[in-house]
Amino acid sequence: MSGLGVRNLLALSATAIGAFYLGSHTKRERLQQSSSHVIRRLPGLPTFGTVSAASLVPAANSANLTATQSRVSQIMKYGFPGLDHVRSHSDYVLSYDRRNRIPHWVFEHLTAESVARNDAVDRSKCDFKPDESIHPFFRSQNTDYRKSGFDRGHMAAAGNHRLHQKHCEETFYLSNMAPQVGQGFNRDAWNTLEMHVRKLTKSYTNVYVCTGPLYLPHKEDNGKMYVKYEVIGSNTVAVPTHFYKVIVGEATDHKLHMEAYVMPNKVISNDTPLNVFQVPPETIERAAGLLFFDQINRKHLTSINGNIV
Amino acid sequence: MSGLGVRNLLALSATAIGAFYLGSHTKRERLQQSSSHVIRRLPGLPTFGTVSAASLVPAANSANLTATQSRVSQIMKYGFPGLDHVRSHSDYVLSYDRRNRIPHWVFEHLTAESVARNDAVDRSKCDFKPDESIHPFFRSQNTDYRKSGFDRGHMAAAGNHRLHQKHCEETFYLSNMAPQVGQGFNRDAWNTLEMHVRKLTKSYTNVYVCTGPLYLPHKEDNGKMYVKYEVIGSNTVAVPTHFYKVIVGEATDHKLHMEAYVMPNKVISNDTPLNVFQVPPETIERAAGLLFFDQINRKHLTSINGNIV
Repeated sequence: MSGLGVRNLLALSATAIGAFYLGSHTKRERLQQSSSHVIRRLPGLPTFGTVSAASLVPAANSANLTATQSRVSQIMKYGFPGLDHVRSHSDYVLSYDRRNRIPHWVFEHLTAESVARNDAVDRSKCDFKPDESIHPFFRSQNTDYRKSGFDRGHMAAAGNHRLHQKHCEETFYLSNMAPQVGQGFNRDAWNTLEMHVRKLTKSYTNVYVCTGPLYLPHKEDNGKMYVKYEVIGSNTVAVPTHFYKVIVGEATDHKLHMEAYVMPNKVISNDTPLNVFQVPPETIERAAGLLFFDQINRKHLTSINGNIV
Repeated sequence: MSGLGVRNLLALSATAIGAFYLGSHTKRERLQQSSSHVIRRLPGLPTFGTVSAASLVPAANSANLTATQSRVSQIMKYGFPGLDHVRSHSDYVLSYDRRNRIPHWVFEHLTAESVARNDAVDRSKCDFKPDESIHPFFRSQNTDYRKSGFDRGHMAAAGNHRLHQKHCEETFYLSNMAPQVGQGFNRDAWNTLEMHVRKLTKSYTNVYVCTGPLYLPHKEDNGKMYVKYEVIGSNTVAVPTHFYKVIVGEATDHKLHMEAYVMPNKVISNDTPLNVFQVPPETIERAAGLLFFDQINRKHLTSINGNIV
C-alpha cells in the first residue's frame, strides 16, 4: 500500500474543511456551495485548492468563529478520538455516526466555573430539536423517540454547560442524543456518573470527558458471539447496548489522571457503587474503534484513584 | 451551531493528511512522527501548519506517489462516499470501519483493459495478509476467520485488478475482506454479481463500483426492530447481514448510468436472476450512512436498464 497522493490529500482535506465549515444539509449541496465560493475544484476531484483562513471566514462572522475555534482547541486539547463527521458547538464537539443516527463520541471540557449553578441559564427553555446540519437521510427526529420507551439521553450533559443559555440549548440537538432507558438509568445511574464527572472539577483545574455508545457482543447458546441492538422510529435510530465515559483530570501541578466507565443501557440498582463500572480505557477503545486522548503518553498517566492506567 | 474554527480546520486536515500519508500503525505513533518531520504542532492541537507538496513527498518516492495520486483521482472521480479512515492502494480505495474490523466501502474503477485476462498475473501467488496500516486494536487477522465457517470475502474483487501482480496482491489485505458465506454466496451469487460488473466494461468505457457491507434491521415477534449480526474471532470481526454494490457506467457519449444491488449474506439459489437484488441507490445510502457518487446530479442520470434512478 502506498500513500494517497498529495493532490488527493489536499483535495480530501479541503472536502473535510468544507464539511466542518459549511455544516450544510447535504454533501451534494455542500460541494456545490464550496465550488462556487470557497474552494476551487479540479475535474475528477471533490475539491481542491489552497485554503487560507481569509477564504474560509466570512467577515461578518470572524469574531464568532475565532471564539469557537479557541474553545474547540481547549476542548480537544488531548486529541480527537476519530474524524468522522465532526460537528463543533460553542461548548462541546461531536462526531456523528450517520449509520446509527446517534453520536460516535462527544467531547467536553469542564471547569468549576462551567458547571456551577447559574440562574441565568434555564434548562426548561431548551427544546429537543433535529440537527439541520445532518443530511436528512441520517437525521433523527423527535418522532423516532416518541412511544419508543426510551429517553432522549444527552451525550454532552446539559448540566455541564451552564455558562450561557446558548451552551445549554446546543446540548438539545437530537444529534447529541442516544436512546437511553429512562427510569433506573438515564435519570439514575447514568445521572450519578454525570454528577461524578462534574464533581471532579473540585479536585482538578480542567476535566476532559469523552462520552459515547457501545454495541457490545454477547455469547448465545450456540457458542457464537453476536451484536444485537434495537433500532427505533422511521429513521432506525440505534439503541446502544452500553455507554462509556473516558475522563482526564488535569491537576493544579499539571499532572494528568484518567478513569473510564462502561454502563449497560438498562435498569441499574441505585445501590450499585460507581467503581463497579470502571474499566481500562483500552477496553473501550477496542470496542468503540476509537483512540482516546492520543496526545497523552499513557505511560506517564495515573488513574484518578492513583493506579497506573 | 457554528463552524469549527479555521485553525482547527487546518489542524484537522493536517491530521487527516498525516493519516493518509504515513499509514503508520497507531495514531499515537503517527502524530509523534508527523510532529517530528512532516507537520508542525501547536500546543493543544493535534497538528497544525502549512502543508506543501514538497514537505509531504519523500524525494525517493515521488514518482510512485504521483502515479498513485493520479490513479486515486481516476477511481474517486465522482466523489467519496465518506472520509473515515481512507486507505489508498495502487488500484482501489478503501474506507475502514475500525469498530467492525471490515471496510465501510471500497471504490474501484474498471475498464475493459483492467479486467482482461492476463497470464502475467497469478492469483495463486497472492496471500491473505493483515493490514499493518490499521492500528493493532482494530486489525483483523487470518485467525479470526479460521474455523468461523465464513470465507474471507473480497470487497474489491481480485478479478477486477489484472493489470499488474501488485494490483492483485493488494486486494488480499484483510482490511479489504469481510466474512461471507462461502458456498452459495461468495463463490456463487456474489461472484455472479462481480462478473456482471466486469462485463459492463464491454458496454461502458469506464465502470465505477462502490462495494460494502450492510447491517439491516429485522422485525421480531414483539413488533420491535433489531439489528443483529455475528462477530468472529478474538478481534470480533463483524459478519454483515447484507452486501451492496453501487455501479456507475460512463458510456462513449459520456452519458452516465447507474444501478445498485443488495444481496443477503446467505445461500442464494443459483437460479435467482440478478435483477431480483436491484434497489434504488438511496435505499443503500440510508442504510449505510453514506452518499454515493455525490458529484453526479442524479436528475441527469439514467439507470443501466434505461429507467430514471
